[in-house]
Amino acid sequence: MSEELVLASESRIRADLLTQAGVKLCIKVVRVDEAMVKDSLVSEKIDPRDIADALADLKAQRVSCKTPGAFVLGCDQVLEFAGLLLAKPTSPDELKSQLTVLRGQTHQLHSAAVIYQSGQPIWRFVGTAKLKMRFFSNAYLDKYITNNWSTVRHCVGGYALEAEGVRFFSKIDGDYFTVLGLPLLEVLAFLAERGVIQK
Amino acid sequence: MSEELVLASESRIRADLLTQAGVKLCIKVVRVDEAMVKDSLVSEKIDPRDIADALADLKAQRVSCKTPGAFVLGCDQVLEFAGLLLAKPTSPDELKSQLTVLRGQTHQLHSAAVIYQSGQPIWRFVGTAKLKMRFFSNAYLDKYITNNWSTVRHCVGGYALEAEGVRFFSKIDGDYFTVLGLPLLEVLAFLAERGVIQK
Repeated sequence: MSEELVLASESRIRADLLTQAGVKLCIKVVRVDEAMVKDSLVSEKIDPRDIADALADLKAQRVSCKTPGAFVLGCDQVLEFAGLLLAKPTSPDELKSQLTVLRGQTHQLHSAAVIYQSGQPIWRFVGTAKLKMRFFSNAYLDKYITNNWSTVRHCVGGYALEAEGVRFFSKIDGDYFTVLGLPLLEVLAFLAERGVIQK
Repeated sequence: MSEELVLASESRIRADLLTQAGVKLCIKVVRVDEAMVKDSLVSEKIDPRDIADALADLKAQRVSCKTPGAFVLGCDQVLEFAGLLLAKPTSPDELKSQLTVLRGQTHQLHSAAVIYQSGQPIWRFVGTAKLKMRFFSNAYLDKYITNNWSTVRHCVGGYALEAEGVRFFSKIDGDYFTVLGLPLLEVLAFLAERGVIQK
């Protein structure tokens, strides 16, 4: 258990998933202009999956330069629908438009994890989950947004599956941890392999 | 929102899953000699999946007779490995034997839900998830059991995926709610269809 894991993410849920699994970690975040980087990658027509990987890479790399030796885990999640990346909604109206587009359809969540050590990427993985939304009513959608906007405004897709957002879905293919934003099983396998946690 | 949902289960996690999804419920439990019923079904060589369904049915039926009108949800979960039902471990040694048998292998969890109204079954569903365990060390297994026995002794399989138990797994196929013991998406679809929650 010689190495230290540094989580380069402010996401409470990612820290909780790792902590609940018994992983000791510390959190260090360096500001990255995510929106600008994302816009630039989207304009270059990079695949949504590869955009998630690039953003996870960037976050890990920035923190790794400041914490040589440690394993630094960077993460990102994007939502892909019909080949396009859907940005996080910036207003209740935008969330309503997004959820209306996704209603009755299947979209994908890509959750990327990249681990750096001493400024070099040493491991990476992107998990993908497919989620099918049911045909919910406009009345329910309006009520959901009114009641939940303040808590879901920072969530990819504007829903939280661990809360009322689960009611939008009729089918989920792919692992739950990937849906929550971290391919936990794969990260744990790496940490066990490298002796950060017991094998 | 005229109907009331009664959960015929003492499981905290099932109540939490429904409550987090915004479902209002009350809990009513009638004692059923589960072990005896299960043993009898096993001795009749009933499929593990059908045993979960029969136990969920029995629990819902018993409570339904006492709460006419209400929707009563009964639940059960069983673990199937190589065609056989694995009972909940009754001692740390038994848990160690079970986890040693499951190590490196794939097993299934069947989560059954049955809804009764006024003494009659009106809906049922069994969700199945496939879980592959990694090759963990004996040292890790011993440490896990020492640290976790008091909390996992009531869990099917002797692991809790929402805690350190996740470290046993290399792959999970099937939805997380089914792994936790409740096919939540299907139950929510029924409740929306019947007006217990908004459609």
